[in-house]
Amino acid sequence: MAEGLESLEACLERHIPPEDLAEVKRILYGGETRKLNLPAAALSAAQERAFELQGYGFEAAPEQLRRPRIVRVGLVQNKIPLSTDAAVSVQVAALHRRIEEIVEVAAICGVNIVCFQEAWTMPFAFCTRERLPWTEFAESAEDGPTTKFCQELAKKYNMVVVSPILERDEIHGGTLWNTAVVISNSGAVLGKSRKNHIPRIGDFNESTYYMEGNTGHPVFQTQFGTIAVNICYGRHHPLNWLMFSMNGAEIIFNPSATIGTLSESLWPIEARNAAIANHCFTCPINRVGTEYYKNAFTSGDGGKAHHDLGHFYGSSYVAAPDGSRTPGLSRTQDGLLVVEMDLNLCRQVSDKWNFKMTGRYEMYADKLSEAVQPYFVPNIIRE
Amino acid sequence: MAEGLESLEACLERHIPPEDLAEVKRILYGGETRKLNLPAAALSAAQERAFELQGYGFEAAPEQLRRPRIVRVGLVQNKIPLSTDAAVSVQVAALHRRIEEIVEVAAICGVNIVCFQEAWTMPFAFCTRERLPWTEFAESAEDGPTTKFCQELAKKYNMVVVSPILERDEIHGGTLWNTAVVISNSGAVLGKSRKNHIPRIGDFNESTYYMEGNTGHPVFQTQFGTIAVNICYGRHHPLNWLMFSMNGAEIIFNPSATIGTLSESLWPIEARNAAIANHCFTCPINRVGTEYYKNAFTSGDGGKAHHDLGHFYGSSYVAAPDGSRTPGLSRTQDGLLVVEMDLNLCRQVSDKWNFKMTGRYEMYADKLSEAVQPYFVPNIIRE
Repeated sequence: MAEGLESLEACLERHIPPEDLAEVKRILYGGETRKLNLPAAALSAAQERAFELQGYGFEAAPEQLRRPRIVRVGLVQNKIPLSTDAAVSVQVAALHRRIEEIVEVAAICGVNIVCFQEAWTMPFAFCTRERLPWTEFAESAEDGPTTKFCQELAKKYNMVVVSPILERDEIHGGTLWNTAVVISNSGAVLGKSRKNHIPRIGDFNESTYYMEGNTGHPVFQTQFGTIAVNICYGRHHPLNWLMFSMNGAEIIFNPSATIGTLSESLWPIEARNAAIANHCFTCPINRVGTEYYKNAFTSGDGGKAHHDLGHFYGSSYVAAPDGSRTPGLSRTQDGLLVVEMDLNLCRQVSDKWNFKMTGRYEMYADKLSEAVQPYFVPNIIRE
Repeated sequence: MAEGLESLEACLERHIPPEDLAEVKRILYGGETRKLNLPAAALSAAQERAFELQGYGFEAAPEQLRRPRIVRVGLVQNKIPLSTDAAVSVQVAALHRRIEEIVEVAAICGVNIVCFQEAWTMPFAFCTRERLPWTEFAESAEDGPTTKFCQELAKKYNMVVVSPILERDEIHGGTLWNTAVVISNSGAVLGKSRKNHIPRIGDFNESTYYMEGNTGHPVFQTQFGTIAVNICYGRHHPLNWLMFSMNGAEIIFNPSATIGTLSESLWPIEARNAAIANHCFTCPINRVGTEYYKNAFTSGDGGKAHHDLGHFYGSSYVAAPDGSRTPGLSRTQDGLLVVEMDLNLCRQVSDKWNFKMTGRYEMYADKLSEAVQPYFVPNIIRE
């Protein structure tokens, strides 16, 4: 598939006349998000290192009893730097290097919490249905080389690091999981959050490799705010977002790997809806580029065997609880999105819209309990 | 507030060059929706009667065992034709006449199911917090004059009519409800669905007048498909959509009354997300225009007392289960949106994306039951 537009937002900016542009942005994005002034050193480093750097800020009203709780998050999207048939350890090392040079720029930009894309240490190889060498990318969440690498970054830059990897769970028979490791700015591993919903769609053959997560909906109380991680396909499940929010998440990251033909028109909708519905910030992150595999595979769609899953369209963005959002990063390039937010906005919007108060969750807990029964009788009214 | 753009979609069509427009529509709307060829008699009648008429169609793949289940729905958005200080019965009669002339055109267009906007027989007067004369607009759902009027339309045009009114419930002490009456194409009242979630935001002082509905999440099996009605503020609650879907709704109408400053950037997101998340069609409908009241009222925002709630921005649209959507009707004019859909698309998308299968609803029923306990302990991980 062709890569297409560099960015939807850039296209709108270029063609909509100024007298209409503000109104278009208000309707589409909830207004114009403030641009951050990022340090010159960061901008030049990003240019040298060939990744896009953008910065935006969300405001909240001043309060009497709470000071503003300003936090800067960094969302990283990237291609795999090497071809998929390079040696596993060489591919991992190259990804570590690439992330290191992006995180260094994030640090210059004052980022407090950084999140990488889903399964960031590997190609998104689950389309192949092959085991080796892909399962060799799996690591211990607690003390694998990637976690150690992230602990070093966290300490060095005083930064919370959210590191989504393929996890090898040795104490449960070497089971694989799709897991985000959350590392405190102290360098300690705070804990992990496993992907709750696993796709069976197109070439997303992930259920071949791992099962639905068993860590529930933990939130991590960091020095910079209470965060949670909803991995990829969990984005499609409103209840998944809701339970992270019920546990107190103010920022929910959504590290993903998804392709244009499948999901691109859903991408601006789902995480943004979750920010609105749950009075929190959401941060969907998607990888970029097209990854090629030596062995061809078919897609269960009558088409010919082929060597790639499709074009990962990037477009990482941040949505705010008031329904506004930042522009997306590029559809084709590596990028770092730096977003400043005042977390006080979450409760302010909640007190305005009252979705938790008006949610009638008792009723839904009962209704859902009925609906999951094998012989559930739906409430159908007939003439 | 100024009315602003006539329509977002018209603005994009006008300014984005053809070589980019298809790609912009793909990313924003999931592609270009097919335009319907509507009868010339309908187009000219709409022009004479001063309302916008648009028609679009959604396709599904052919199947072996099910024939296509093609249905045409009609969404009606309109201003109040008379000023709010006209006599109650005169206002109602004028609204009946206006709807009658729009429904006549819907019938020429082959519409099978028509839905009107929330509380369509009255100004959206709940901002005033006054009782009289507004509560006089309330009627019996079963045999009030508006229900009888709709029964006549239904029989005459062989059309299912969804009629959202202010309901006076005489058998429960004359209680008021915000209720959609569903009338079969036979003319029989199939039943009613009450608004499940009531706002307390800005001037939407509806909780002053009526309470959360007690009809649950009924779906209505009509000759043309299984439908449900999620009224206005219920749009913000993903669980409300979910339970209508769990009961089997293929089309969920969302008759609304909402204003630009409050919700316009949420409008394209929430109902569309619900169509995606629940593998069904959703039909959000919003009234148009600004309604003025003789007595001024304040808004709890430090501003001066004023005479209107704000600008209702119309923009009614239909979202499909595959994430695509039609353009919206005008932001300023009365309109009828005719949308043809093959309901087979719902199950086709469900079989592709599998959200019901992968939803883990048992877990959420348990988690929600815990979360609503007064002394619920959230799952917070601290260093």
